[in-house]
Amino acid sequence: MVGKVPTITPTNRFDDASVKWPEGFKTCAINLGIKNGTLDFTVIQSVVPANAAAMFTQSRFCGAPLQVGKKHIANGRLQAFVINSKNANVATGQQGIKNSQRIVHEVANALDILPDDILPSSTGVIGIQLPIERMIKGIQGLRHQMSDGGFERAAEAIMTTDTRPKIRIAKVGGSTLVGIAKGSGMIEPNMATLLSYFVTDAKISQPVLHEMMKEAVNESFNMISVDTDTSTSDTVAIMANGLAGEVDIEDFRQALRSMSIELAKEIARDGEGATKLLEVVVDQAGSFKQAKKVAKSVVNSPLVKTAIFGRDPNWGRIAMAVGKCEDEDQIDPENIGIAFGDIPVYGGERELNLDLDKLQAYLLNEEVSIRISLGLGEEKATVWGCDLSYDYVRINAEYTT
Amino acid sequence: MVGKVPTITPTNRFDDASVKWPEGFKTCAINLGIKNGTLDFTVIQSVVPANAAAMFTQSRFCGAPLQVGKKHIANGRLQAFVINSKNANVATGQQGIKNSQRIVHEVANALDILPDDILPSSTGVIGIQLPIERMIKGIQGLRHQMSDGGFERAAEAIMTTDTRPKIRIAKVGGSTLVGIAKGSGMIEPNMATLLSYFVTDAKISQPVLHEMMKEAVNESFNMISVDTDTSTSDTVAIMANGLAGEVDIEDFRQALRSMSIELAKEIARDGEGATKLLEVVVDQAGSFKQAKKVAKSVVNSPLVKTAIFGRDPNWGRIAMAVGKCEDEDQIDPENIGIAFGDIPVYGGERELNLDLDKLQAYLLNEEVSIRISLGLGEEKATVWGCDLSYDYVRINAEYTT
Repeated sequence: MVGKVPTITPTNRFDDASVKWPEGFKTCAINLGIKNGTLDFTVIQSVVPANAAAMFTQSRFCGAPLQVGKKHIANGRLQAFVINSKNANVATGQQGIKNSQRIVHEVANALDILPDDILPSSTGVIGIQLPIERMIKGIQGLRHQMSDGGFERAAEAIMTTDTRPKIRIAKVGGSTLVGIAKGSGMIEPNMATLLSYFVTDAKISQPVLHEMMKEAVNESFNMISVDTDTSTSDTVAIMANGLAGEVDIEDFRQALRSMSIELAKEIARDGEGATKLLEVVVDQAGSFKQAKKVAKSVVNSPLVKTAIFGRDPNWGRIAMAVGKCEDEDQIDPENIGIAFGDIPVYGGERELNLDLDKLQAYLLNEEVSIRISLGLGEEKATVWGCDLSYDYVRINAEYTT
Repeated sequence: MVGKVPTITPTNRFDDASVKWPEGFKTCAINLGIKNGTLDFTVIQSVVPANAAAMFTQSRFCGAPLQVGKKHIANGRLQAFVINSKNANVATGQQGIKNSQRIVHEVANALDILPDDILPSSTGVIGIQLPIERMIKGIQGLRHQMSDGGFERAAEAIMTTDTRPKIRIAKVGGSTLVGIAKGSGMIEPNMATLLSYFVTDAKISQPVLHEMMKEAVNESFNMISVDTDTSTSDTVAIMANGLAGEVDIEDFRQALRSMSIELAKEIARDGEGATKLLEVVVDQAGSFKQAKKVAKSVVNSPLVKTAIFGRDPNWGRIAMAVGKCEDEDQIDPENIGIAFGDIPVYGGERELNLDLDKLQAYLLNEEVSIRISLGLGEEKATVWGCDLSYDYVRINAEYTT
């Protein structure tokens, strides 16, 4: 329980039968043979048009489906998410956009909904055209493959190098909110993608929905980094179909925020080759922007990440990572405090003789938290990442085209 | 031979006996027992005060010796570089500054020169005080340990995790220019430092010397990255004692520039765990700033670096790394060309069917060049880095305090 947040049930704490999924949503998770025989295609449909909001990657090499989807979300209304894995449809030119549009139209026909109410996503290898004819054939009988609930299979169908599906569910008043996400840093071995989808039967106006989703993304998905490499296909989207009626907006805001943070942390924890979840908290900052910049500098430092992997209480690397924020000219080593968990290692609170055994014992935890106090103000930022291990190199170097 | 540049002899192509070192410079390379019995202390002295220039790290956690050295270089005059390895004297507070000043004064007394004419540097572990009494004792007899030339031993004495000393020499008219450098990304296992020192007996006015050094640094040391982690102690400095008289300034500028680039490339090539030198050239850019930003994004991408290590002609990762320069809103995938060496893989020049065998053969080279043409203008930038290997993780994770 986080404040007023309704219970958020982790994946492994419910089974499909025991939960009341949000009203009026159908899903399917199938194989279209895009690359092999595993699940590679999922559709999440609302039985009625829903208020919707979505945020996308800012990459200059943004994928073809995003170029199509940005137009479709413009009016704040959607009725389906259509997602394929195994191929990102990125850097595929006009043909890629045509293919994405064609998939959207075939799904619209099959489900008898409007193409403009569909948000398409693709994740996988970059620079290769989709096997469009094979996909179209598989989409024909789609209507008969849609069933109520089934979000766990959908969460599986969007996985790439993820080692487990990522799903959360929460009850807000009479409504239910469910969210799924995928992302691990890389995929066989091209750009992976952070994809996250939320659906609810709560009745929420589109402007409020958009503002709440944006706020939640800024505190969650925008605060994680596995390897500093921004995907070409990142997409976070939500549909609210209103079938469960009005709910307490603040409760819903809380639930959406907590759920987004849990899913984001799941992605960092499941980062490519990761053995630990790394949390970096920067407080006493002059601004949120400053706090986030310093926190990202630390969570992204290869020297800090390898030290965490090696369980090395090597706080000098943290000082270095703070120091390389060269433009933050208010930052003064004289005012800074650095701690692992609640063990100060630099600055005011530090004891003269560091207890290295205590430090190394702390670094055996699967979650390591680094706190940096800048002594400049009241602002604070928390970011999440993971360590840098041999497996990160193996996963990303072993592949040959 | 690069244009008018005099021959620049690599380390392994001359021996101490065969070269005419610049006039009026003495060096020593000794052990003061800072950590173990290996060389850890070197002094490079001019027999007369020399015009000098220096550039330093912009880290907010800048080391104690730099705070002392910045004052001493302010008047553009130096007579000695004093460098210790094994301890960076960083994040050591007022005591660290006192220790650095004390070393400077002891060396000044021993060599009978002015403390203000000494530039001190330290490289090694962060956050530990120097064994100052032991060092002072070792400095007493310094005068008798100074000898002419001996720059190769000096280049060894400043090494950290470097696998080989880095030294270049060039003749410019009647004068000689010698440069040494160190840097590998990390040191047992704290922040390594890029240190580079140049001395010449050419007569060059201080303003011209400073401007030439700055220009050379911007095209060389500021264009390399091993692991994105800016050191707390980076220092590049030059002394010109004038004993060989006037020389052609443009020849000297060329020699200094070429030598700086060669030493910078040596550092990238010798990066922690590196198996390949990675060169990224961005041309047809709208500005140098834009070209450098895109080139740095590619050379620093863990996905690109692991692909190079894995000999994977995976150009989608290069597209990703270009794409994540989100603020460069002129960049349009439609106008971009990407090539490995002279093999186009994306954009206009690319053939329909990529010859993957040819690509993979190219990636067996010890130097891999990636060219990205933005199709926006005439500006160009070249940066250097290295691949990301298992050894990078091993070197930086295996250590425990």
